[in-house]
Amino acid sequence: MTYQLDTDTALTSTEDGRYEGNVSDRWGVLSGVPNGGYMMCFAMRALADALPAPDPLTLTAHFLRPGKVGPVSVFTEVVKVGKRNATGMARVVQDDKEVVRALATFGRRSDDATRAIHAEPPTLPPRSECEHHATPHHPEIAKRFDNYIDPATIGWVKGDPSGDMVMRGWMSLADGRPPDELSMPLFADGLPPPLFNVVSPGWVPTIELTVHFRGRPVPGYLRAEFRTRFVSGGLLEEDGVLWDEEGSLVALSRQLATMPR
Amino acid sequence: MTYQLDTDTALTSTEDGRYEGNVSDRWGVLSGVPNGGYMMCFAMRALADALPAPDPLTLTAHFLRPGKVGPVSVFTEVVKVGKRNATGMARVVQDDKEVVRALATFGRRSDDATRAIHAEPPTLPPRSECEHHATPHHPEIAKRFDNYIDPATIGWVKGDPSGDMVMRGWMSLADGRPPDELSMPLFADGLPPPLFNVVSPGWVPTIELTVHFRGRPVPGYLRAEFRTRFVSGGLLEEDGVLWDEEGSLVALSRQLATMPR
Repeated sequence: MTYQLDTDTALTSTEDGRYEGNVSDRWGVLSGVPNGGYMMCFAMRALADALPAPDPLTLTAHFLRPGKVGPVSVFTEVVKVGKRNATGMARVVQDDKEVVRALATFGRRSDDATRAIHAEPPTLPPRSECEHHATPHHPEIAKRFDNYIDPATIGWVKGDPSGDMVMRGWMSLADGRPPDELSMPLFADGLPPPLFNVVSPGWVPTIELTVHFRGRPVPGYLRAEFRTRFVSGGLLEEDGVLWDEEGSLVALSRQLATMPR
Repeated sequence: MTYQLDTDTALTSTEDGRYEGNVSDRWGVLSGVPNGGYMMCFAMRALADALPAPDPLTLTAHFLRPGKVGPVSVFTEVVKVGKRNATGMARVVQDDKEVVRALATFGRRSDDATRAIHAEPPTLPPRSECEHHATPHHPEIAKRFDNYIDPATIGWVKGDPSGDMVMRGWMSLADGRPPDELSMPLFADGLPPPLFNVVSPGWVPTIELTVHFRGRPVPGYLRAEFRTRFVSGGLLEEDGVLWDEEGSLVALSRQLATMPR
């Protein structure tokens, strides 16, 4: 089985540290611009290949300009290979212009469960009580997801914003591709901004997105919650927690974004 | 008045994008290794000089190896200069070995206070009810701070850990240097890990630290709270909120760290 996300982030290694691929039109947001989390997956995939360590630990991307449908090159640099961890940098380039600059450290997570401390996963209604594909105007990317959104967080779609800057839901890919670490940047940027529960929907460009990879998800839906606490200086943060269906934390995300004009 | 932190992060620009400085022995933690937040200030200072935008917005550092007292070079690259924002990379190098790799975006925060939404600042006891310099064994860096720690969060120093992974306090530099954006990475890494309220103190190396700069602090103490929610896979996050004395948010921080062995 070949899944869409894997086809649409496929890379061929051309020479030392360089990768070539193609940005698909299947992951566009309203304006047709490819989703930032999707663009970040190219950096993720190249670094996973370039770095000699099994588990991604942390990945930060700075978004320099909008991506576009068409050819893409990823240039990687192995910054350091240590005993435990390996750090690398990636430049995602289209038409000789850099679109994303990313920095990641990979390593090896321990499986010492005796020293795990887990706060509670987000509380979600059962999927039967959630709103399926509750996205206004249905941008292209909405067809790629099989998401069930907590109705308490999506009232803004019908002009009834909750006033609470949170978005929660069950997240999955529509073609049944199981969640994994490669897809985590996409999930981390895959729900509308929690801001829309307070401010009229508009373009909320991401400046920087960091994902901490905390575990490998089991197949099934992810339980996700994204929250904004502070809007100031024309900026806001968006903090995400992503759990797998068995109730294990798989990722924390945080992005810095710009307020709509 | 020349303050210690400014002396100890002074850089001279030598050629295109390169800076030279000296790592002081005044910011060492227990083992004498310079504090990671202090090392990050070298990247911050070089990027503030190299990038043509006034306000730091987000800075991420990956810690590759421990820093040491002595000469340091910072090599900067201007990644992109846009209409609103400018992004740059910095390599902090000692003895031809890279110690820190950093990525930052600077820009211009708006002063549109009409669209600000602020969650509440951390609740702190008055300084008269806090513990002054409540750090065990007094590493060198402890002498540089004038911190007042909420006693509810520092019981672990006396063998009475709270069980709640939080550290809170009023933070300031001992020589009266007012807090600013340059010093924010230091403050973001300037209290002992909240983890010590659950796990015996030990070396908790930082893999990556990201600071979002949300406002310029007024002179005075910072109100800071650092919290760990998840320990898993030998990893933990540490989330910080830093407010100024007048009650404005100035920074959010998040680091990924490794559990003590």
